[in-house]
Amino acid sequence: MKTHTLLMPLDMHLHLRDGVMLENIAPLSAYSFSGAIIMPNLVPPVTTKEDVIAYKERIMAAVPNDYFEPYMTLFYQNYDKDFLVDVAEEITAIKLYPAGITTNSEGGVSSFDIEEMGPTLETMAELGIPLCVHGETDGFVMDREAEFMGIYEELAKSFPNLKIIMEHITTKEAVAMLDKYENLYATITVHHLLITLDDVVGGMMQPHLFCKPIAKRPEDLDALLSVALDAHPKVMFGGDSAPHPQHKKESCGCAAGVFTAPIALQLLCEIFEQFDKLDNLQAFVSDNAQSIYGICPEFKEVVLEKRPFVVPENYAGVVPIYAGETLNWAIESVE
Amino acid sequence: MKTHTLLMPLDMHLHLRDGVMLENIAPLSAYSFSGAIIMPNLVPPVTTKEDVIAYKERIMAAVPNDYFEPYMTLFYQNYDKDFLVDVAEEITAIKLYPAGITTNSEGGVSSFDIEEMGPTLETMAELGIPLCVHGETDGFVMDREAEFMGIYEELAKSFPNLKIIMEHITTKEAVAMLDKYENLYATITVHHLLITLDDVVGGMMQPHLFCKPIAKRPEDLDALLSVALDAHPKVMFGGDSAPHPQHKKESCGCAAGVFTAPIALQLLCEIFEQFDKLDNLQAFVSDNAQSIYGICPEFKEVVLEKRPFVVPENYAGVVPIYAGETLNWAIESVE
Repeated sequence: MKTHTLLMPLDMHLHLRDGVMLENIAPLSAYSFSGAIIMPNLVPPVTTKEDVIAYKERIMAAVPNDYFEPYMTLFYQNYDKDFLVDVAEEITAIKLYPAGITTNSEGGVSSFDIEEMGPTLETMAELGIPLCVHGETDGFVMDREAEFMGIYEELAKSFPNLKIIMEHITTKEAVAMLDKYENLYATITVHHLLITLDDVVGGMMQPHLFCKPIAKRPEDLDALLSVALDAHPKVMFGGDSAPHPQHKKESCGCAAGVFTAPIALQLLCEIFEQFDKLDNLQAFVSDNAQSIYGICPEFKEVVLEKRPFVVPENYAGVVPIYAGETLNWAIESVE
Repeated sequence: MKTHTLLMPLDMHLHLRDGVMLENIAPLSAYSFSGAIIMPNLVPPVTTKEDVIAYKERIMAAVPNDYFEPYMTLFYQNYDKDFLVDVAEEITAIKLYPAGITTNSEGGVSSFDIEEMGPTLETMAELGIPLCVHGETDGFVMDREAEFMGIYEELAKSFPNLKIIMEHITTKEAVAMLDKYENLYATITVHHLLITLDDVVGGMMQPHLFCKPIAKRPEDLDALLSVALDAHPKVMFGGDSAPHPQHKKESCGCAAGVFTAPIALQLLCEIFEQFDKLDNLQAFVSDNAQSIYGICPEFKEVVLEKRPFVVPENYAGVVPIYAGETLNWAIESVE
């Protein structure tokens, strides 16, 4: 039977939430990934060294072994230098949200005033702390990411020594930025390599495919696939797996977020095999991230096997993408 | 208190369904409208003279008085001349659906072969039967209507004596067609004068605003408003009010359709007043349709009053647009 081995898979954008949800969900990522960048948009957000340490401890208590590294992040605010120097060893990145743009982002940045943000961003550059950005304006839903490109350009030019990660990119405009500025990088989710807006609202309305940024047009999907499948050295897998309880997804006014963590590697194998690019998957799910972030994850070997795998209807009450459907790849072993 | 009177309001695109749903829903339209073009996409669709007569009887049995005229339609197929001559007096129009494009459209047209459709369309033109068209391709959801413009152009040029109604238009491309071909007309819904895709998936996902064609971009909304508010003589109100049971809207894979019939006139008053165009509403909701279709509805006078009106949470289990919200206009009396 055909197999494919991945070493030290990394999920460079993960929501683990907190409390019971954390306890239910964290083991699923810890099983198949060596580590993950942990999003700080809790309620209230993670903004102090104590928050970071305590959240990391809660995550480690929730995972069944030591073979998973939660790469912690702070919720972006304008922080002073002393604080950043003190917190630096506890975090891998700082995540910036425009205020109110997605789940639990109310305390984010409400205007991109480069002068005001300057001291924080300069210090981050000095300390080698990357800035992860949720890059959307509050404009029309299909234009929000493309409209944000001007802000990426201003940040990239103003802070040339700061590593800026364009998180969960969804457009050809964002893809084009990768080769325009040396210090711009990107994560791409697995669902944005699979769906367009058509899958969300083109037939019936599909709440389990509803996320922010929303899936865009076919030409955007093509652009994302081109850099992911070629494992462009500036792109990394970041799942943005975002669990919500089933009732919050299947109701009037459903919450944004697609739950993918437990089947991300299986889906990625399927996509990369379909385009005859399986050899590039290792770079996309681990090597590129190691280079960009300068991290050395613990050893983990995940062997996937090409055989039918039926996606569970839910994981502890959270409905995953493609629930009940059959994928072509399954996880055979993890060591 | 400020009032506004409308005479013989007409809904030139209405879904009344059948059975219990018909019995629950038809009286709501019959109360405030003089008549409506009744869509034929039942299961199975309305394709024979007997179907038309029987469906009309079921509708009349469901409405509490005689002051409502159901303008009946046939589901488009290639029909022969004898049949069309025989059925002509029972119908007001024939409705064409591309196959599979929306609710109960499976038996529609799968390829627009002008030669094959020629005899039917020529006969319709001779008999003065308008062709109502759901104008969408099976392309990307935001492009489906714009992509259909080529088919409208071919139909308009090939059958210059056929009145062609572009149903529930949602794009600036369709608006532009109105002044390009003499024999192209359009209906516009009330919800497409209010929302864009932003309202459907820009914040939380809103199943009660999910419809086909899907609401488009801000510039499309502006184009629709411009012709509706000016009561362009080739546009008519057609609500496309499409009831579904609540559980089919608020679930995984929700059905397309917005239920607007009982609050359409109130909403239209609100929109037209907001743009200081109340004087044009009479033409948009009745006079234009009378001219285009050559129909003379029974007298009905609807007086609306400017006062707060809370939209019911549901009408017999069907959730309307803006359920529970407060509108600025209410129906004061109907005579």
